[in-house]
Amino acid sequence: MPNPVILDCDPGHDDVFAIWLAAGHPEIDLRAITTVGGNGRLAHTTYNARVVTGLAGITDVPISPGAGGPLVRALSPAEWIHGANALGGPDLPPPTVEADPRPAIELIRDTVDATDEDVTIVATGPLTNVAMFVRTYPDRLARISRIVWMGGSTGRGNVTPYAEFNCWCDPEAASIVLGSGPPLTMIGLNVTHQALVTQDVIARISAIGNRTAAFGVELLNFFNSTYETDQGMPEAPLHDPIAVALVAEPATVTTVRTRLDIELHGTETAGATSVDLIDQLKREPNADVATGLDVERFWRLVEDTIRVLA
Amino acid sequence: MPNPVILDCDPGHDDVFAIWLAAGHPEIDLRAITTVGGNGRLAHTTYNARVVTGLAGITDVPISPGAGGPLVRALSPAEWIHGANALGGPDLPPPTVEADPRPAIELIRDTVDATDEDVTIVATGPLTNVAMFVRTYPDRLARISRIVWMGGSTGRGNVTPYAEFNCWCDPEAASIVLGSGPPLTMIGLNVTHQALVTQDVIARISAIGNRTAAFGVELLNFFNSTYETDQGMPEAPLHDPIAVALVAEPATVTTVRTRLDIELHGTETAGATSVDLIDQLKREPNADVATGLDVERFWRLVEDTIRVLA
Amino acid sequence: MPNPVILDCDPGHDDVFAIWLAAGHPEIDLRAITTVGGNGRLAHTTYNARVVTGLAGITDVPISPGAGGPLVRALSPAEWIHGANALGGPDLPPPTVEADPRPAIELIRDTVDATDEDVTIVATGPLTNVAMFVRTYPDRLARISRIVWMGGSTGRGNVTPYAEFNCWCDPEAASIVLGSGPPLTMIGLNVTHQALVTQDVIARISAIGNRTAAFGVELLNFFNSTYETDQGMPEAPLHDPIAVALVAEPATVTTVRTRLDIELHGTETAGATSVDLIDQLKREPNADVATGLDVERFWRLVEDTIRVLA
Amino acid sequence: MPNPVILDCDPGHDDVFAIWLAAGHPEIDLRAITTVGGNGRLAHTTYNARVVTGLAGITDVPISPGAGGPLVRALSPAEWIHGANALGGPDLPPPTVEADPRPAIELIRDTVDATDEDVTIVATGPLTNVAMFVRTYPDRLARISRIVWMGGSTGRGNVTPYAEFNCWCDPEAASIVLGSGPPLTMIGLNVTHQALVTQDVIARISAIGNRTAAFGVELLNFFNSTYETDQGMPEAPLHDPIAVALVAEPATVTTVRTRLDIELHGTETAGATSVDLIDQLKREPNADVATGLDVERFWRLVEDTIRVLA
Repeated sequence: MPNPVILDCDPGHDDVFAIWLAAGHPEIDLRAITTVGGNGRLAHTTYNARVVTGLAGITDVPISPGAGGPLVRALSPAEWIHGANALGGPDLPPPTVEADPRPAIELIRDTVDATDEDVTIVATGPLTNVAMFVRTYPDRLARISRIVWMGGSTGRGNVTPYAEFNCWCDPEAASIVLGSGPPLTMIGLNVTHQALVTQDVIARISAIGNRTAAFGVELLNFFNSTYETDQGMPEAPLHDPIAVALVAEPATVTTVRTRLDIELHGTETAGATSVDLIDQLKREPNADVATGLDVERFWRLVEDTIRVLA
Repeated sequence: MPNPVILDCDPGHDDVFAIWLAAGHPEIDLRAITTVGGNGRLAHTTYNARVVTGLAGITDVPISPGAGGPLVRALSPAEWIHGANALGGPDLPPPTVEADPRPAIELIRDTVDATDEDVTIVATGPLTNVAMFVRTYPDRLARISRIVWMGGSTGRGNVTPYAEFNCWCDPEAASIVLGSGPPLTMIGLNVTHQALVTQDVIARISAIGNRTAAFGVELLNFFNSTYETDQGMPEAPLHDPIAVALVAEPATVTTVRTRLDIELHGTETAGATSVDLIDQLKREPNADVATGLDVERFWRLVEDTIRVLA
Repeated sequence: MPNPVILDCDPGHDDVFAIWLAAGHPEIDLRAITTVGGNGRLAHTTYNARVVTGLAGITDVPISPGAGGPLVRALSPAEWIHGANALGGPDLPPPTVEADPRPAIELIRDTVDATDEDVTIVATGPLTNVAMFVRTYPDRLARISRIVWMGGSTGRGNVTPYAEFNCWCDPEAASIVLGSGPPLTMIGLNVTHQALVTQDVIARISAIGNRTAAFGVELLNFFNSTYETDQGMPEAPLHDPIAVALVAEPATVTTVRTRLDIELHGTETAGATSVDLIDQLKREPNADVATGLDVERFWRLVEDTIRVLA
Repeated sequence: MPNPVILDCDPGHDDVFAIWLAAGHPEIDLRAITTVGGNGRLAHTTYNARVVTGLAGITDVPISPGAGGPLVRALSPAEWIHGANALGGPDLPPPTVEADPRPAIELIRDTVDATDEDVTIVATGPLTNVAMFVRTYPDRLARISRIVWMGGSTGRGNVTPYAEFNCWCDPEAASIVLGSGPPLTMIGLNVTHQALVTQDVIARISAIGNRTAAFGVELLNFFNSTYETDQGMPEAPLHDPIAVALVAEPATVTTVRTRLDIELHGTETAGATSVDLIDQLKREPNADVATGLDVERFWRLVEDTIRVLA
């Protein structure tokens, strides 16, 4: 039986592939999409979610906008990677899907309340919405089977030397979610940097031949170009869909049970994820942290799910 | 025409007088009470709000529980001042008022939506609920005419040398509210420590002779006793109703327009309110900060409003 | 028998009166003067020390320059109070006293080594030199009977809302000295703001009639003028000599044994002195903190010591 | 002509090989050794320096003890790696070399003053002594051609997830040195973890056959055993001599000119070295940071220099 999933995201190029993977995989029943300010401002990320669902034929999943920016800090959208509208590259067709009128955290609540099954939250942006959900509706936490988050790193970051963008953007939200109760799985740069958009990857997706794939190829080419300029990486890492892949086919990602702490106070390192892989701090493990990826299986997942879309 | 007011509180001895003042004053139309974890745990502060409204004959104001504790930090209820149930002293009669089933931030939203008038939020506890409201429903912010908060200090604190309890409890929430848009008025210890519960004050309230006054006197005696033990102050400062008094009769409190910043990162000073009274930092003023109190008028307000209750 | 005293200072208007008080009082045997960057850059504070000693006929006290600025942070000299040369107001006569070739911490060491008596360090600037002395020559710490420091505050600050200039300038040094062993007495703004340079004070000093007094009056007039502009105080507080007064005539200053912690990490409050006057933190007392001043006695001390100078 | 070098160290197993490499290499003229609290307490690190120099026939290099611990923080010697005496493993013969009576920073000053050549400081412990030297004798900074430091990391740490021991121990000192003027080269864990003490390395050193080598093998076996237990690394990285190797034969180590900042304020990450390898922060480069090691050449250097010792 497929996993009921709520996808909280900030599309963003790689978020788009996360949406498609979640919508296209038989082991996932995508019940709701919520959007957050992160890769782009909320108006853009919400608009983009509406565009890329409709384009892919995903018309039955409610989409609700959430937080416009981080809880405590100011938002700096990652325009240097995703462009001014958070989805640089292709011309965006007009959205054919409407936004749901409920705020994100109410849609999450209602989605949980509408089912007897426990629900998985997959988050591929800053954890602002998820943090607000857990603080506003603590009585629903028992219904969240797990939270799988693309964010953080066990090593270097990508927005400062030690901070990954999603965590850097709203470290307080990450800290709230981490301590809130449901099991948290963190998929960080140490793993996502294995999912590089090679020319072979682009060729394979291109070969699918449908509308979604064609649009996806335009996204990937843009993403590679900004990664080359900003990060010196001509093959961009396609971070976000790995979080969905872990839910769809758990064997795709290796994780370890360990201690994770979020740096909230550093001058140079705010938003760093301190992962105590060798238990030096002698604290209680509190998270599952990804350490490995079956790269070929991951790309096959991406390919297979795009194939079933429009 | 009376001001529509939502009172966010954590009763707490002095919160009770804030509720009574808000309910009893002709210039205030108390539309909703929301509760938060602070002086006591949420179960206690909500229960206490239900008790002291019913006891005073306030039966038409919805009461909704909000956040169980601070956004990011752990809650340490001020039991050393307010006792284990947050309302030490009198025997509590069973509540005759039910809690509203909506979470606090939904009650705030619905209260705003139910009127064409702009609404004042008076907050006498940690600003957790208000912060979550402003982040969840930013489209309602234009409808909040102002936020009046009892919290902070321009000088020394009361829970650490430089931090006042409400701000220390949830400084991130205070920071969120401060930057959210509606005008913020801070009424801190520098002013509230002028509103001391003298024997004369107790005698005056006692002389009112109704049920509410009798209960209030028991509260004040307990409050004085814990303040003497913990703070070396045999006459406790009745902080919270001053925030209501400012709305009811603005001339009761003197304020200055100035710069307020919240310390989020200090080891010794987290939760301190940095108030730049002489503009040394050359930053934009962003708050009204109380600097004076008409003490006699304040106590008369307290007296007069208790007199009209049950 | 007079107390052997080393005076570490950053003249600076009020430091000058500290030097004069130390040199002119029979209970103090001023053995060395060391200078530090603080109120002004080191070149200025050293030069000024040489000027004001020679002018007052103090020619037998070695003067050594120490640290050019704080240990870890950058120096922002208090030019807004002391002027560009740290001693605005009077024309400075050429110095008649040479600087000692030894660095400050070597002069402190040699001064300690040259006597069998224990030595008091009076510091009226940032504690950079004293911190470096205690870290470089820990074997001499047993020879320091106490360190008396003008710095900090139990309430508001004067350079930021909660930080006093000397502590704000080098909080890490203050923290080092505080934990180093010798008893520390802190004389902060809460007390020094009682020593206001009134017109009566100026008249009394003027009436002394000697060269030192005439120069002093020019300093005081300048000091009053910058305090009025910067702090809104037309009568400036003459902070620094109070630290010397405490050593010369202990009854001049009231102190309490209490807990003092230095804020090293705050964004808004770095350099604040957290003084736990009512033992809320339940930590071990580690300092004597001034809480009261015999104002008339203090000014008499200033007057009497200037009278015996040139 | 060989480089005049002052070696500031905290022996410590790998420091010993740094001393030997500096003493035995023809391109280095080892003028002074200063010791600091770090891997062990100062009494141990000084004693150990005296033991391992005498044992290796190095009898003409003055050895002065410096700071007992970090500037601002408390010392936690790395006993879990180096044992209770900081040099676990071999029986230590009595030292045959006396300590110099001058404090470390005076020995550094005198060493600089005794020559017309510019001097290189190689530091293989916390930078406390070097920081105190630069603050006490700023007029000698022009005589320091460079500071080469084993410390920090461009990736993960070894005492917390993001902090390397030498930097974590005294981040304020590192920050002082970094901003003091002389060029700083940082050799961090990202490079030192390539210099693993394999069985082949041990065999090669053992084969040298002299007293120093035999003692060294005992050190390496102990070092491997604690690294296996504490870090899960059965082959320990021999960090410290790489800093000497860089001075002796620069081609051994690859460096890049980049931006380095030290985290002083983080709760989880204090002491992390934030190295901006891809210039994301757009700050001025301020350090040379090691990124590569010629491993074979390094071990040959270690071998060759031990061979010429006693």
